[in-house]
Amino acid sequence: MSEKSKFDKVSDLAFRRGLYFPSAHIYSDSLAGFWDYGPLGVTLKRRIIDLWRKTIVKRDEMLEIDGSQILPESVFKASGHLQSFVDPLTECKDCRVTFRADRLIQRRLEKLIPEALPSKELDSLILKNGIVCSECGGELSKVFKFNMMFRFSAGPKLGNQVALRPETCQSIFLDFLRVYKTMRVKLPIGIAQVGKSFRNEISPRRNLIRLRELTQAEIEIFFNPKNIESFTKFDQIMDVTLRFLLVNDQELELTAEEAVKKKIVQNKLVVYYLVLLKQFYELVGINPQNIRYRELHDEERPFYAQSAWDLEIKTSLGWLEVVANHYRTDYDLKVHSKGSKTDLMILDNGEKIIPWVWEDSMGIDRTLFVALDAAYTEEKKRIFLKLPNYLAPIQVAVFPLVAKDGLTEKARTLYDMLKVEFDTFFDEKASIGRRYYRVDEIGVPYAVTIDYDTLKDETVTIRDRDNKEQIRIKVGGLKDWLKLRLNFIPPNQ
Amino acid sequence: MSEKSKFDKVSDLAFRRGLYFPSAHIYSDSLAGFWDYGPLGVTLKRRIIDLWRKTIVKRDEMLEIDGSQILPESVFKASGHLQSFVDPLTECKDCRVTFRADRLIQRRLEKLIPEALPSKELDSLILKNGIVCSECGGELSKVFKFNMMFRFSAGPKLGNQVALRPETCQSIFLDFLRVYKTMRVKLPIGIAQVGKSFRNEISPRRNLIRLRELTQAEIEIFFNPKNIESFTKFDQIMDVTLRFLLVNDQELELTAEEAVKKKIVQNKLVVYYLVLLKQFYELVGINPQNIRYRELHDEERPFYAQSAWDLEIKTSLGWLEVVANHYRTDYDLKVHSKGSKTDLMILDNGEKIIPWVWEDSMGIDRTLFVALDAAYTEEKKRIFLKLPNYLAPIQVAVFPLVAKDGLTEKARTLYDMLKVEFDTFFDEKASIGRRYYRVDEIGVPYAVTIDYDTLKDETVTIRDRDNKEQIRIKVGGLKDWLKLRLNFIPPNQ
Repeated sequence: MSEKSKFDKVSDLAFRRGLYFPSAHIYSDSLAGFWDYGPLGVTLKRRIIDLWRKTIVKRDEMLEIDGSQILPESVFKASGHLQSFVDPLTECKDCRVTFRADRLIQRRLEKLIPEALPSKELDSLILKNGIVCSECGGELSKVFKFNMMFRFSAGPKLGNQVALRPETCQSIFLDFLRVYKTMRVKLPIGIAQVGKSFRNEISPRRNLIRLRELTQAEIEIFFNPKNIESFTKFDQIMDVTLRFLLVNDQELELTAEEAVKKKIVQNKLVVYYLVLLKQFYELVGINPQNIRYRELHDEERPFYAQSAWDLEIKTSLGWLEVVANHYRTDYDLKVHSKGSKTDLMILDNGEKIIPWVWEDSMGIDRTLFVALDAAYTEEKKRIFLKLPNYLAPIQVAVFPLVAKDGLTEKARTLYDMLKVEFDTFFDEKASIGRRYYRVDEIGVPYAVTIDYDTLKDETVTIRDRDNKEQIRIKVGGLKDWLKLRLNFIPPNQ
Repeated sequence: MSEKSKFDKVSDLAFRRGLYFPSAHIYSDSLAGFWDYGPLGVTLKRRIIDLWRKTIVKRDEMLEIDGSQILPESVFKASGHLQSFVDPLTECKDCRVTFRADRLIQRRLEKLIPEALPSKELDSLILKNGIVCSECGGELSKVFKFNMMFRFSAGPKLGNQVALRPETCQSIFLDFLRVYKTMRVKLPIGIAQVGKSFRNEISPRRNLIRLRELTQAEIEIFFNPKNIESFTKFDQIMDVTLRFLLVNDQELELTAEEAVKKKIVQNKLVVYYLVLLKQFYELVGINPQNIRYRELHDEERPFYAQSAWDLEIKTSLGWLEVVANHYRTDYDLKVHSKGSKTDLMILDNGEKIIPWVWEDSMGIDRTLFVALDAAYTEEKKRIFLKLPNYLAPIQVAVFPLVAKDGLTEKARTLYDMLKVEFDTFFDEKASIGRRYYRVDEIGVPYAVTIDYDTLKDETVTIRDRDNKEQIRIKVGGLKDWLKLRLNFIPPNQ
């Protein structure tokens, strides 16, 4: 590829075709970290969520909820977010630019700085190493804590303190007991949720990569840690291989079974969900060699996790975290039990317990980005998105070869027939080559062209996006031909 | 039905089966107006949105976007919300209960009070009519304006003023020009969006009816008012009848064509979208006699609308607004053009214009309620939800007649076969009658029972939710039998 970075090319394509773009872009005071999805992006995003729902949520018979985004502050007091969901910041005393202190020090010293290091220690690291503002060389302020939640009040006048959730999962913990009881389920049980979360990030960046308003697909698996050995679903996936990057920098490729035996991962339940996620990303179009699990250092782990694995994908930006996986133990139900003064224990096979939690926290915006990044292909002057057929926002294009002699009308009839079943696009403007180019760029798998022969013998050509090959088939068989290739068929599970 | 109101019965069912319930309910400081959807509610909500997308958005070839929920305050300054999205409140000086002044006066005087009446006039109405606190009889404070938007700051430290959108539509106006250009469309064009909106309502009430956090499905149709007569899609729907309630209290039933001819509705474009919505609600399961359009009085109309029609549905709570429809003229693009100092004009057939806007603003939570309310049926001791098959959260139940003699294993096999394609539920506990009762209550259209004959001749019974009739069919034909009845087939359009 040419000098422009691949990331920039993917972004250019996304803006050019309106997949996503900055929110409120016409206003000069619009803020970084807020993005809107345009028509093609909306569909791609929805298909990714549908795929997640089909291949993880439904496959594993999880329950899905949809909770409020605004929650009382008491929830975040109990969860620890009020205290701990903070960034240590420092501000330049001259130019007033704000930095995340730990990251700034980390970049300067080229070594890992623990997430939870006290402000005082950060202050002394800045002082000792003579770290100054990277913008203007000015002196830096003392480190101060900045809570990343958006907080405000609800209700009349002064009202109650509330916050926009910084992650979707709290509703899952709050609703756990009710859902468990009304749905009459048994442990282990997964509860899933897809929706928006909000974080007042100090430096949102790289389009969809670090957002202030993001879409997450989170799963909390509730289980009894004593019964982990009898987790039979493990048998379905024990032979699947996974790549690991351990805290000691060792890289490994192991089967699920080996990973448990060698105690690389916690237990059978954990490895089962790691496999489900890996298989999901393969279906998103990621080469399995570009999917790995990175073990998090003690210093990197969030406050609620006993151990953590990031599912990382190798992209044009390097290895990128797309799913954060946390072994949360009984932390969440315990703190909310205490915070709400509600008994959240359940009866599991006659034993009263607080369930433990394994969490898969997926970033949907980042997943959309990695799907595009992996699909982006240049072939001489041709750009095309090699998206899996079931993810393509537009599934089939219908073109009259030329816009005359009744070809347009014939093509319109075909379009009307197909559009009920497939996301279909019609175009009669410009040369046929130009039209192919435009649909290649947004990943349309098949383009159907109506030409003079169609009027004679009811046949059309179907052009394949990836290899540009064309075949000729009868109009009567077109729907079935497409259905066979466009609909998602779950792999053998 | 018995003494309990139908609304209470529907609510009881929803809570009992976890369709929806108060958010953060385990915390004592959880606020009214925030609700979570449980597993069955999530699926029902999603199916309603899918139906909207298929029968309105896709049918009309609209474009869908997904914009940020947090927007800079400048957007709402331009849109008028900062100034006009306010409730006039009054507080009891004794017990501190807050009331919406206009509604309180309206209830006491039993006459309509204009939405935009100045606070001073409300003050004098309270004084003149001796209106006091309905809780304790105390004196009421002077009326004060209360903006219903949740406002806070984003960005580091003091940051920029932002607000959670009180309606989804502003993103559609902000993104209009970009979407119009990147998607290379022509007027008239609809842009749709489904997502959350937020309003700090003074008195949220009746579960899903008045929420502080709600889901809307909004559509903005951009058109050139000069070309309205050549709106050909009108021809498809001119014979469809609609019910109207006019400002003069006249009730009418007219065809779309008559409604335009008699100048009851603005024009052909408006009536076309009124018909699409009415047809949608019929598919939701509403009797057409229970769907009407109420013309809004001058005093009731929001500040941006030149005329407005509420789509109302007759429910157990009386006639309920579910879609607000507004003739917004060029108000929105003009104010944002001015506010952002951006030229939002487009070239329509060689003429530079600011498009006009027709809006359909649907409440998804209310739509879910009316679907349940219409579906709720009592037949002696049996309660069942007569939901259209394509809306039922669980589509098919699989029961072994008894949990022994290999029937469970056989039923499990069948369940595993069906669950890939349908939302399927398995239950082996309790008597078969009790199990039918439980699935009736959540609207499962078909229950498949495996009995001793199944082991002999590979047949099963299928029981129909509505008439309780049972038929016996071969297992081999089951999938096709169900597919034919469960999948949504768009009506002839």
